[in-house]
Amino acid sequence: MKQTILTGDRPTGPLHLGHYVGSLKHRVELQHSHSQTILIADLQGLTDNGHNPEKVSSNILNVLADYLAVGIDPNVTTICLQSALPALSELTMYYSNLVTVSRLERNPTVKTEIASKAFGSSIPVGFLNYPVSQAADITAFKATLVPVGDDQLPMIEQTNEIVRKLNSVADKQVLVECKPLLSETSRLPGVDGKAKMSKSLGNAIALGSSEKEITQAVRKMYTDPDHLRIEDPGKIEGNMVFTYLDAFHKDTDMVQQLKAHYQEGGLGDSKLKKIVEETLQELLRPIRQRRTEYLEDKAELINILKQGTLKSRTETDLVVNEVKSAFGLNFFS
Amino acid sequence: MKQTILTGDRPTGPLHLGHYVGSLKHRVELQHSHSQTILIADLQGLTDNGHNPEKVSSNILNVLADYLAVGIDPNVTTICLQSALPALSELTMYYSNLVTVSRLERNPTVKTEIASKAFGSSIPVGFLNYPVSQAADITAFKATLVPVGDDQLPMIEQTNEIVRKLNSVADKQVLVECKPLLSETSRLPGVDGKAKMSKSLGNAIALGSSEKEITQAVRKMYTDPDHLRIEDPGKIEGNMVFTYLDAFHKDTDMVQQLKAHYQEGGLGDSKLKKIVEETLQELLRPIRQRRTEYLEDKAELINILKQGTLKSRTETDLVVNEVKSAFGLNFFS
Repeated sequence: MKQTILTGDRPTGPLHLGHYVGSLKHRVELQHSHSQTILIADLQGLTDNGHNPEKVSSNILNVLADYLAVGIDPNVTTICLQSALPALSELTMYYSNLVTVSRLERNPTVKTEIASKAFGSSIPVGFLNYPVSQAADITAFKATLVPVGDDQLPMIEQTNEIVRKLNSVADKQVLVECKPLLSETSRLPGVDGKAKMSKSLGNAIALGSSEKEITQAVRKMYTDPDHLRIEDPGKIEGNMVFTYLDAFHKDTDMVQQLKAHYQEGGLGDSKLKKIVEETLQELLRPIRQRRTEYLEDKAELINILKQGTLKSRTETDLVVNEVKSAFGLNFFS
Repeated sequence: MKQTILTGDRPTGPLHLGHYVGSLKHRVELQHSHSQTILIADLQGLTDNGHNPEKVSSNILNVLADYLAVGIDPNVTTICLQSALPALSELTMYYSNLVTVSRLERNPTVKTEIASKAFGSSIPVGFLNYPVSQAADITAFKATLVPVGDDQLPMIEQTNEIVRKLNSVADKQVLVECKPLLSETSRLPGVDGKAKMSKSLGNAIALGSSEKEITQAVRKMYTDPDHLRIEDPGKIEGNMVFTYLDAFHKDTDMVQQLKAHYQEGGLGDSKLKKIVEETLQELLRPIRQRRTEYLEDKAELINILKQGTLKSRTETDLVVNEVKSAFGLNFFS
């Protein structure tokens, strides 16, 4: 029996190398051994872009093209659109009666995110409620495994709390609990060395970057600021050149040799950056090419998304009907 | 052009004379001159009954039977079930990104209701959010008139705020504003003289009450506690016997004569209560009979509700699609 994975992204921008290392690569690996669904979470994207829906809607097909370009196969992985699955909104309504306002305000992930955004005291109720909506997504697909970073563990806990409450109210097991699938790779920092690669921080390399954009990003890459002359010994820790070589270079022995050489002295940043650049150009060239091809046929992209969404609609409608039946509300089916 | 009315009830108990005077009677009158939809608001009923869905689900057909028994004609008025209209949940999701938590916490109606319920600090997020869900209901039917008591005016204001915000974000008129239709009749107090007739307060006369229950309720009716002897002058104000005669007796001249007689002295409570009882028995006898007949054929009740719901589904799905199109999210239609 294959385990069921639900994962996804908020389509608020094209995906970048951070997504590639943190999730996309794993999805390509997991898609054959698991029953995997990827949700393009446009409704969740709107929870902090309510006044700018275009930011979300204009990125849906970009994100889909990113998925396909890295090798996610829509014949194996179901790719679907959140806003086109009414069941996810319906389940959110039922679940939000089982979660208190203060419980959501205590959620550490939500607290951190509220602090990092410019809401001030104007938190949209949809944003406060997004862990409930996420629980709806996870349970609607009866997912047993949810890939997360450890900062997202409170979301899994919130989901399982809802599952237990609903099953207790229904007095039978309607929903299934899920487990986190913690990523082994640590998060890829931005080219500037900041902890998070993010389009809005301007430190990201998008999967669709042009050759020139890659060259420029690598040129700006943060290395060892004290490594002034080639013959000086250099530091590895916090040096993005090595972080990126570790993440992307296939020959780990060679990377170890480069590290030793750099620490000894006699290896210049520009030579290293050339290796990083070649590595990234090689990785991204075919991805960029496939991405462009997909984006040239939007009708086909929409068709792929539609097929996945229709399949998901059947699955998720079934779960709503089970919840409604358990509550005695299924009059017409 | 007929104006469009949306109205409804939370199916948390069978309807009573308070509903009859406050809304049902008007709905029967309005159904020919207006395009009227009545929503059985089971999802809203769940917002403070999340742990007891049976209280809601078991009353849906009772409330429908109440409607039909008082003369609401399903061929003229559309009667539909909230939980069977996914569009209402979907719109709630979009709207909740446009309303802040603090705005909801300031809503006077919500504040009053939270105070009157036993939530303590455990307010379900679904309950806090119910004005947004109500805005979804109203706008999904493009209602222009919403019958309310004046305590419900903040809900209309909240709805119109959402309408204006969404139209501004969409940069075109997607939703229409609504106006309150204030009831001319004041609220019917309970038989005990308390301001609100309510099943949970035990001071209600349900539309399906038996003859005996009506007799007993009238016997307990609060009159003038200082009117000890028949020959004493009695008070009219706060005297439920006269409140109910005003509300239900057809011969207003006769009621005026009885009031004068009572104030003078010489008219006993028991004689008055007999008149009240006869009035109520006469009113409720055919209602009870029709109600029983309807409830004997649950399949037909479900069919009536289904027809109204299917008609409403077409209407409300259209509005979701308009919102999605305005946001650039309508990929598959």
